[in-house]
Amino acid sequence: MRKRTVAVVGATGIAGQQFLVALAGHPWFEVTALAASARSAGRPYGEAIRDASGARRWWCSEEPAADLLGLPLEDAARLDPGRVDLVFAAVESDAARELEPLYARAVPVVSTAAAFRYEPDVPIALPGVNLAAHLPLLEQQQRRRGWKGFVLPLPNCTTVGLAISLKPLLDGFGLERVLMTSMQGLSGAGRSPGVIALDIVDNLIPYIPKEEEKVAAETAKILGRLGEGGIAPLPVPVGATCTRTAVLEGHTVSVTVVTSRPCDPSAAADALRGFRPDYAGLDLPSAPARAIIVHDDPFRPQPRLDRDAEGGMATSVGRLRAEPALERGLKYVALSHNTRMGAAKGAVLAAEYLCRTGKI
Amino acid sequence: MRKRTVAVVGATGIAGQQFLVALAGHPWFEVTALAASARSAGRPYGEAIRDASGARRWWCSEEPAADLLGLPLEDAARLDPGRVDLVFAAVESDAARELEPLYARAVPVVSTAAAFRYEPDVPIALPGVNLAAHLPLLEQQQRRRGWKGFVLPLPNCTTVGLAISLKPLLDGFGLERVLMTSMQGLSGAGRSPGVIALDIVDNLIPYIPKEEEKVAAETAKILGRLGEGGIAPLPVPVGATCTRTAVLEGHTVSVTVVTSRPCDPSAAADALRGFRPDYAGLDLPSAPARAIIVHDDPFRPQPRLDRDAEGGMATSVGRLRAEPALERGLKYVALSHNTRMGAAKGAVLAAEYLCRTGKI
Amino acid sequence: MRKRTVAVVGATGIAGQQFLVALAGHPWFEVTALAASARSAGRPYGEAIRDASGARRWWCSEEPAADLLGLPLEDAARLDPGRVDLVFAAVESDAARELEPLYARAVPVVSTAAAFRYEPDVPIALPGVNLAAHLPLLEQQQRRRGWKGFVLPLPNCTTVGLAISLKPLLDGFGLERVLMTSMQGLSGAGRSPGVIALDIVDNLIPYIPKEEEKVAAETAKILGRLGEGGIAPLPVPVGATCTRTAVLEGHTVSVTVVTSRPCDPSAAADALRGFRPDYAGLDLPSAPARAIIVHDDPFRPQPRLDRDAEGGMATSVGRLRAEPALERGLKYVALSHNTRMGAAKGAVLAAEYLCRTGKI
Amino acid sequence: MRKRTVAVVGATGIAGQQFLVALAGHPWFEVTALAASARSAGRPYGEAIRDASGARRWWCSEEPAADLLGLPLEDAARLDPGRVDLVFAAVESDAARELEPLYARAVPVVSTAAAFRYEPDVPIALPGVNLAAHLPLLEQQQRRRGWKGFVLPLPNCTTVGLAISLKPLLDGFGLERVLMTSMQGLSGAGRSPGVIALDIVDNLIPYIPKEEEKVAAETAKILGRLGEGGIAPLPVPVGATCTRTAVLEGHTVSVTVVTSRPCDPSAAADALRGFRPDYAGLDLPSAPARAIIVHDDPFRPQPRLDRDAEGGMATSVGRLRAEPALERGLKYVALSHNTRMGAAKGAVLAAEYLCRTGKI
Repeated sequence: MRKRTVAVVGATGIAGQQFLVALAGHPWFEVTALAASARSAGRPYGEAIRDASGARRWWCSEEPAADLLGLPLEDAARLDPGRVDLVFAAVESDAARELEPLYARAVPVVSTAAAFRYEPDVPIALPGVNLAAHLPLLEQQQRRRGWKGFVLPLPNCTTVGLAISLKPLLDGFGLERVLMTSMQGLSGAGRSPGVIALDIVDNLIPYIPKEEEKVAAETAKILGRLGEGGIAPLPVPVGATCTRTAVLEGHTVSVTVVTSRPCDPSAAADALRGFRPDYAGLDLPSAPARAIIVHDDPFRPQPRLDRDAEGGMATSVGRLRAEPALERGLKYVALSHNTRMGAAKGAVLAAEYLCRTGKI
Repeated sequence: MRKRTVAVVGATGIAGQQFLVALAGHPWFEVTALAASARSAGRPYGEAIRDASGARRWWCSEEPAADLLGLPLEDAARLDPGRVDLVFAAVESDAARELEPLYARAVPVVSTAAAFRYEPDVPIALPGVNLAAHLPLLEQQQRRRGWKGFVLPLPNCTTVGLAISLKPLLDGFGLERVLMTSMQGLSGAGRSPGVIALDIVDNLIPYIPKEEEKVAAETAKILGRLGEGGIAPLPVPVGATCTRTAVLEGHTVSVTVVTSRPCDPSAAADALRGFRPDYAGLDLPSAPARAIIVHDDPFRPQPRLDRDAEGGMATSVGRLRAEPALERGLKYVALSHNTRMGAAKGAVLAAEYLCRTGKI
Repeated sequence: MRKRTVAVVGATGIAGQQFLVALAGHPWFEVTALAASARSAGRPYGEAIRDASGARRWWCSEEPAADLLGLPLEDAARLDPGRVDLVFAAVESDAARELEPLYARAVPVVSTAAAFRYEPDVPIALPGVNLAAHLPLLEQQQRRRGWKGFVLPLPNCTTVGLAISLKPLLDGFGLERVLMTSMQGLSGAGRSPGVIALDIVDNLIPYIPKEEEKVAAETAKILGRLGEGGIAPLPVPVGATCTRTAVLEGHTVSVTVVTSRPCDPSAAADALRGFRPDYAGLDLPSAPARAIIVHDDPFRPQPRLDRDAEGGMATSVGRLRAEPALERGLKYVALSHNTRMGAAKGAVLAAEYLCRTGKI
Repeated sequence: MRKRTVAVVGATGIAGQQFLVALAGHPWFEVTALAASARSAGRPYGEAIRDASGARRWWCSEEPAADLLGLPLEDAARLDPGRVDLVFAAVESDAARELEPLYARAVPVVSTAAAFRYEPDVPIALPGVNLAAHLPLLEQQQRRRGWKGFVLPLPNCTTVGLAISLKPLLDGFGLERVLMTSMQGLSGAGRSPGVIALDIVDNLIPYIPKEEEKVAAETAKILGRLGEGGIAPLPVPVGATCTRTAVLEGHTVSVTVVTSRPCDPSAAADALRGFRPDYAGLDLPSAPARAIIVHDDPFRPQPRLDRDAEGGMATSVGRLRAEPALERGLKYVALSHNTRMGAAKGAVLAAEYLCRTGKI
């Protein structure tokens, strides 16, 4: 396969840098363009991420690839998408609304921004769950908008572990209701300024603005059915309470579901262990060997111990038991890595699927 | 009123020391005896809590009262309860099963241990919620066991904020189901060794052994009805998931309930704000001015900001909203201080009620 | 004594709010004016500190006094200082350079900003250490600048515990060299944005810009001698390494000194215990009973256990021992509360001294 | 080279498990025996590390190698050392004093315990610094004790980063005095129970029993000269203050030295960057490409960002500057990984050196 050239837009932020890490040494993709806001643009990338004191503002534990440091950082509003095969966008929602259509006219755009997630002709890509089912909608998007490319957003990072763990239960037993309380990691809030240390040491915060609405809408859309008129959301209410805890990375969710058909915990464990993601068999470079890992040890999953399982691409599930307070109730705790599978690396996996299936 | 003399048993542990803090300068109670395991006994208290290096093993932020330091620390198994009017017991459950009956033969025992909570002739004392309703059961306990005193345990610390916040909803709207995910503070696990720092920094633990069962059983018993045959538990299932977070003190619970009658969030807020605890009007020294505080700010309650409200005796409730995933569903976040209202200071409040109502 | 009216400038920030807490119910001072930047001004204080979502941006654990909430928040650049007896300024250094002279023309200004600390006619006020010795310089400042009032800055918060602990050693044994490594709390960095949680959880940061230079210059000036030509700094080099740790409040310093005359640890302990602050005997409302507390327990001082000693106004010293690597070397660990004695409450104590000695 | 068979003693503890991780897939060593106290022995390793609830007590982020789980866990007191080529010992000091001689009679023992560090015929192995210089002492140990093997202890984990960073300065400029304040990670205290979370969240602890004496004695011995009568410690006083901070792994030290000859910071940086460890050129599997990494960014090194550099085997140095308070004073901050280079992996590197140089 010819190596695809890609641009990473929003390359100076934490999400953009995670794309650079996820793409380092990638066998199919080669980063040939980097872009950010006009303010940062005009210098080599390695210089652009140094602050006034000379310190390098690089936020990932992996070092940046040496060849990226010399790439010029371009103004995202003036980036010529025709120079690349694909754009990865990691910008704020307002910027995404402006920029992503500029690129999508020419090439596919895979994005971590929320801007287009709720448009009727836009699927929300959750690898393993709905790529095969929902990507056909992209053709409708292209026709309707007259684009050669398309915009394909990934879900909110909190939705990821929830929707992946729900999928085998939906398929096996049907779902009637979903209740969830999250305990989310700090990196989900980014660094501008994100969560201030004074607010979270010896503390937790019981509210994350807009998060609960996103989780409910996105979960229903991702698990919905693509028909003539677009994606019909799964007609299952999702009630979420989203909280922030003093955990660096990894979103933990305490989930209770009501299934349509009886489902005891061991049947649920079997379904989760037997989950076959829709990218299975395609031999995608970023695909985890196990999309879902089920723990018997009741002290697991824990964010620090389990977030990096399968390179941060697995959803870890534990504490499966019947919920006595609800008929056909089942409950569990799930954990997924919010900046790997839940953001850049999940987006790269989606792009790999697009390549393999001829959409890029 | 004559000042009552009290013994604190388990006085060297963290829970016992919290009793000493809660009783410092108390207008009605005077600590005249201290006891612990035989291993620690035989020295003045101030010496007994020094370790080999001479450092003082005192775990509360308030300093110990000077006059306690000279009191002899006695062997709990040989303590003569006849010397005091009341015993506060803060020992492990196994020790409580042995020791508390020894004292209860002679005098009332108010305890933070679980040992007797589930006995049919033992009420679980939650001040504000069920003292008036359930304390008459103590007479049955005394008759049945032939004791002059009695054993009155407080609930598990996680049950406290949950049951207090449920009480006005139960009274106002009826309850059909309760679901809860807790995010509990570290002090709930004590210091022997409690939670190891290596296990909780940048982490959370999704399981606390036996905690969920306690919460379910105790909540139903506390909210139940005392009849001829004892306390009939509230016939409402309580499904709990209990987790540990990197918070020093304060247990936060994310609660979803199904009410019997429709209850919108503002009606619920009114009911919570209007809650009149059963000790109201008795002018008890440890009673909070407000038993329940309702927050409109969606970022509250937070453990660090709100746990000390009303001297750690208030339950703070916020994020009241409808739960769309359940019919007549209502959800909120509640916070209570696990070692003040949830342990020693709550026990002292219960004892004050006993005094005022002539039971001590 | 007539109650003095005071204005708090910078009243919406964390430092200004700490002034409001330090002044709540103060017997000598009454807050009658509040000011902040033009952007925040024009509304009652209680409204000005609400953000777009309606949440109150109040950063202290104590609640704001009810009567302050209705005070109008004024534009600091247009505040008429003639309306008050005294201004407490808690603004950034650049703003202080503009604003403080405007007020000082009319009334005394006691400030936590660095703007004027290094001017030759400006003493740095460290209560207990140099008020009696250095405040006469204020008259020279008034004459030279033609002001009716004056500007009196407090030291950098890290200097406070260091300089207080050095003073009795200087007086008793003479000082030749000072070396210090700090482990500073998060609140010293404020909230704009201060330290981001992602940067400090499971981490420490070995550098705080400009801090080490401030500590060296301010310590030497505070411990210097006021003569004809102003304050001659103590001719003792102070070498500092300043680091940030995951502690909410309290700055810990590991100090090594070389004394001029031999000084064994027990003599040093006696000197520290016997320290008589220069405000002793004046019966100032914010003065601690003990300015310095010496610990024998080698595990103390600890920030969480000791920062609130004497209402946050004491410096706690422990681990006093000889430093074998230096002749006449002595070392210890000191802790002081950076936002109580190290900021607003220290400034209020300085103002109390000014009142009592007739300077206000 | 024939693969050496090794036994890991203390295999159920955190230090022993780190040996198992450091030896997983090792090209020269094969773990063929595992031992622990009699209490744990007698079952396959995979069962022995399960607790009563069935949860696996494995403390490393890397999973244990599958083939180890079936190895029988033996009683350390009855282990036949003749079955292996080498023993790695990771037991408490008291146990080490008993067990290590039993093994050393037959085979080399490389140990992380302190038991034998201060014996005159025992070198303290710090790879890179003193293996070439001090290992000849092992022959004297063998002769004197009549052992076929020997005991070779590694230093205390806090000594490691200090002594490595001092070595190029000593060689280049001479050393006269060393002062150090450490900010140590939690894993250095182990898990039995190690540091309790209640003691360290929002806190630091200014004392670690016996640590300062170890650092002083071991640094001087490691940097000393091997002569006729054994190792003459470097005649340079080392003054240490050791503190514990809320960092999971990585020991940070703030170091001030007085050099014998003038040494400006850039000359020091050159010396550190040019450091050639004594294992250089031997192509040892666990050797880092860079033993010392020098940072120009003043915000580095930070434990979370830098502890894993070179697989946890590098010492990171930053903030090099003159110390104005001391003549020929130089100061810097150094960081090393306490459980990689500072324990098991450092011990494996030492064993690799022994192999390559024919001592095993």
